Amino acid sequence: MPSYTAPTRDARFLINELLKLENYGNLPGFEAMSADLVETVLEESGKFTAEVLAPLNQIGDSEGCTRHPDGSVTTPTGYKEAFAKFCEAGWGTIGAPEEFGGQGMPHVLSFAIEEFMSSSNQAFGMYPGLTDGAVSAIIAKGSPEQQAKYLPKMISKEWLGTMNLTEPQCGTDLGMIRTRAVPQMGEGEGGSYAITGTKIFISSGEHDLTDNIIHLVLAKTPDAPDSTKGISLFIVPKFIVEDDGSLGARNAVTCGSIEHKMGIHGNSTCVMNYDGATGWLVGEENKGLAAMFIMMNAARLGVGIQGLAQAEVAYQNAVLYAQDRRQGRALTGAADPGEKADTLFVHPDVRRMLMDAKAFTEGMRALCLWGALQVDLSHKAGDEAERQLADDLISLLTPVIKGYGTDKGYDVATNMQQVFGGHGYIAEWGMEQFVRDARIAMIYEGANGVQAMDLAGRKLAQNGGRAVQALFAMIDAECAAAKADPALGDFAERLEKATGELKAATMWFMQNAMANPNHLGAGAHHYMHMMGIVAIGLMWLRMAKISGEALAGGADDAAFYEAKQTTARYYAERFLPDVGALRRKIEAGSDAMMALPVTSFATAA
Amino acid sequence: MPSYTAPTRDARFLINELLKLENYGNLPGFEAMSADLVETVLEESGKFTAEVLAPLNQIGDSEGCTRHPDGSVTTPTGYKEAFAKFCEAGWGTIGAPEEFGGQGMPHVLSFAIEEFMSSSNQAFGMYPGLTDGAVSAIIAKGSPEQQAKYLPKMISKEWLGTMNLTEPQCGTDLGMIRTRAVPQMGEGEGGSYAITGTKIFISSGEHDLTDNIIHLVLAKTPDAPDSTKGISLFIVPKFIVEDDGSLGARNAVTCGSIEHKMGIHGNSTCVMNYDGATGWLVGEENKGLAAMFIMMNAARLGVGIQGLAQAEVAYQNAVLYAQDRRQGRALTGAADPGEKADTLFVHPDVRRMLMDAKAFTEGMRALCLWGALQVDLSHKAGDEAERQLADDLISLLTPVIKGYGTDKGYDVATNMQQVFGGHGYIAEWGMEQFVRDARIAMIYEGANGVQAMDLAGRKLAQNGGRAVQALFAMIDAECAAAKADPALGDFAERLEKATGELKAATMWFMQNAMANPNHLGAGAHHYMHMMGIVAIGLMWLRMAKISGEALAGGADDAAFYEAKQTTARYYAERFLPDVGALRRKIEAGSDAMMALPVTSFATAA
Repeated sequence: MPSYTAPTRDARFLINELLKLENYGNLPGFEAMSADLVETVLEESGKFTAEVLAPLNQIGDSEGCTRHPDGSVTTPTGYKEAFAKFCEAGWGTIGAPEEFGGQGMPHVLSFAIEEFMSSSNQAFGMYPGLTDGAVSAIIAKGSPEQQAKYLPKMISKEWLGTMNLTEPQCGTDLGMIRTRAVPQMGEGEGGSYAITGTKIFISSGEHDLTDNIIHLVLAKTPDAPDSTKGISLFIVPKFIVEDDGSLGARNAVTCGSIEHKMGIHGNSTCVMNYDGATGWLVGEENKGLAAMFIMMNAARLGVGIQGLAQAEVAYQNAVLYAQDRRQGRALTGAADPGEKADTLFVHPDVRRMLMDAKAFTEGMRALCLWGALQVDLSHKAGDEAERQLADDLISLLTPVIKGYGTDKGYDVATNMQQVFGGHGYIAEWGMEQFVRDARIAMIYEGANGVQAMDLAGRKLAQNGGRAVQALFAMIDAECAAAKADPALGDFAERLEKATGELKAATMWFMQNAMANPNHLGAGAHHYMHMMGIVAIGLMWLRMAKISGEALAGGADDAAFYEAKQTTARYYAERFLPDVGALRRKIEAGSDAMMALPVTSFATAA
Repeated sequence: MPSYTAPTRDARFLINELLKLENYGNLPGFEAMSADLVETVLEESGKFTAEVLAPLNQIGDSEGCTRHPDGSVTTPTGYKEAFAKFCEAGWGTIGAPEEFGGQGMPHVLSFAIEEFMSSSNQAFGMYPGLTDGAVSAIIAKGSPEQQAKYLPKMISKEWLGTMNLTEPQCGTDLGMIRTRAVPQMGEGEGGSYAITGTKIFISSGEHDLTDNIIHLVLAKTPDAPDSTKGISLFIVPKFIVEDDGSLGARNAVTCGSIEHKMGIHGNSTCVMNYDGATGWLVGEENKGLAAMFIMMNAARLGVGIQGLAQAEVAYQNAVLYAQDRRQGRALTGAADPGEKADTLFVHPDVRRMLMDAKAFTEGMRALCLWGALQVDLSHKAGDEAERQLADDLISLLTPVIKGYGTDKGYDVATNMQQVFGGHGYIAEWGMEQFVRDARIAMIYEGANGVQAMDLAGRKLAQNGGRAVQALFAMIDAECAAAKADPALGDFAERLEKATGELKAATMWFMQNAMANPNHLGAGAHHYMHMMGIVAIGLMWLRMAKISGEALAGGADDAAFYEAKQTTARYYAERFLPDVGALRRKIEAGSDAMMALPVTSFATAA
């Protein structure tokens, strides 16, 4: 069985030394964030995920969820008990606002815990994880009555929530949804709507973990425009919640089937049938898309973390295997002459895969936790300019964290499986599950091509390019400063060069996309990867810098900081070169890509 | 259910126009190879694979193989009947020598058919496919008696064969095998050995398709050196074959269990227990490794074709889905204003994935069939220099076809799944099976890291670099000629530049690997990808050239040749740029990669 150890040491380094959380003590929720408290929360959550959730990961995969003839769904053995422990320990409440029963801690901490949850058991983590997306929408757009009625129990996870967007005929193109919401005029139906339609791919749509499930559903009212401008968001509880908080009638929403999928078998992916179910409007009619994006942006960051998480757990197991498995000899002569063979660690190609994984996971973790701080700063910073900068940066980088993070996370999980040779393909070792589970993150909450267009087609140009200019200014300033430092100069020069390629690609879009928007679309995915590589490069510059400072200050744990410096160098040598190739692909434009008639793609027998 | 159409039109183009098979009429087996015969064989085999094998692909995946308490194994529903049809039609005999009942046709044809087999049903195709590896070893090293006894029925596929190399403690490092072969001295045991040991990951190790199974088994004789120099190869039939060809006693070889794997469920991957089983030495004692490499090289080309094959079938289905599924609008304005949305084909990012797949599959098919011709020329060309050149080229490129072809094949299959969005993750659409099946090809018959070292550490330096110099000379000459042609000049310049990067990387290895062989190991995988991209680039240059000639000559099927030219341009723009980035990674060397102590990889809690 694969193992898991939460990387709490690395998370503490990032939170205390990279982000310097203690410097933000003036912000609400940050006051008590001492290094001690951070350590306690990380260690306890690390222990919980490793000891309670990780042992259920393979069971969840092999058993899957079971739908019964009455439409009820049973989760895999042990999930229900583990979920009760999760609620009891309050792990679902860390980042939620105190006014609704949350602990109000910084997102930096809740993101770190989200990684541990997802590494130990992605399918399990999705049950509470998606609820937090639904919670965000109700916090942002719900009425005070709705907030009071639903939020405390959704935050405590006494009830779980879902997000119902996709329908058989539409996923990305939500303007095409057909689910209808008709105002109910009868007595006692106070402002409710009758919701009718079919939703598919609903994660955690039905299960046995909680007494109630709060569905957030996109639907169209009778006179709504037939486009994304005519979408409204509704709360549709599985059981109607009475005004005293008790559960009333069973609502007309049922799970029609559960999907057989490549992975995340422990999570029930449901077809949900709404048959005149009673729902309540969240916010205004026809403004559902904005509310949906609030859920979605929270969820997208969570999915980016899943990319990191599967890469991390796969990496940990590959490291253990490479230490244990003996095969062949070092190219430089036997490393362990007393043994019949050396460990896999001596082979450069195995090292290449492990170092790639290490450089990605540590850099991506830094980017995710830095991103989490931007989420907090965008709401809580005292200064308007600071709030705006944080909001600009996290808006720009959300599709990058989701899109690049999950593409590369899958790639790393695949390589870690490769370290195992033939054993990587066998189910009992667990490596192939990590790959199958990682695969979904590139698809859901907006496929990565959609993320690329969100970045290149929307975020880049917003407010006259303010966000991307802010990112470039930040990198330029830090590279300029670092170039003066002999220990950082080489890295800074390489990062500056890569950033130059990214700027050139940005400029190329500005000069060419107006004349032919396909030039933008043809390069968007490459651009997303470029920005991911550069953004993580900035994190590595910072980590190399503070590691040098720690070593100069005589840090106890010298090996930890030296490894950061070496891994930064590896990142510069092995990740940054791709940025130039990606730029050249972008500058090739869309002509050859779009030239062929569709008939030229058909396989003529 | 996914569909499949054998790409016979493209195969005919390659065989008749690119390779000009009719020019080789002087070679044995090529005499009758008219365009008409080629077309008939391709069309019939295409029909067979599409109509008989493809419909069993999902059934094989969902049912898998079943091992019974007595050690027997049942293949999925329909496999046995399909296999009987396969034998009846003689599809297994195409490329085999006529003296043993084969049809003696060129490998170019048998490779084309192998692609169709693998696209339509990889798990099924492995049953006869691996037998051909075993056949190669017996042809090369078996005694005339062994050849007469086993080859005709293995070629007709009345019996199937297996290759038994891996043991629990060793895969890549065959010096560590423990299976023992003790000479049997008793009466009637004429020269046989008693084989005892456990072999794992034995594809097609036990099944119900044939009456007998001929296992080729690596084992060590009692006094053999304890290294790869002490390995011998044995024939161990499931049922002893009497001198009159009838089946005698059941041999002491049994299937101990079958593995639960990520994919290729329809093929039985067995743990095989040899318990004093009777076996016969193939060739000389302690010379088993050479015989094994004969099997292995044949198998590696077959695995490279599997990379192509899964990419191809996934591509075909993605094209159909992209034509059918409507979602969103073209960036340049509605393409189908009468519909609620445009097809996926209008979106550049979908096109990017489809064009990537088209450029890879068509280029890789060209490389595989060109490689097949080199196999034939290496044996059959009239001129010694021509035989040597062909042998040099195919030896050099075998690890590239296997390693780059399967890495990229998996990548393409993953992208084709991505075209389906959420539906790609659902089992019933079949796309996720293509990804799971494609994944094994990067691992078996030598993991791709092993291929990379075979290329960079062995093939490159053999005979003073004669093979790689021959490849470079060929590319240089063709680029020089093509640069004079306005229609090809841009492509030729880009390919020349990419080849220059490959030459520089080769030179870097020569200058640095002696001092530190880890520099070679650290760059080997990158180098394999560089050579794959350049070799397929050469194929695209040739395809662009002959397509231009066909168009100039007023070819009927103009759209076909125009698509080749556009796809060549796409390849130059989107594949060749990676070569430069890979070179820079190689030139970074191994210092940062190998620097960290193993303890720095551990996850400290």
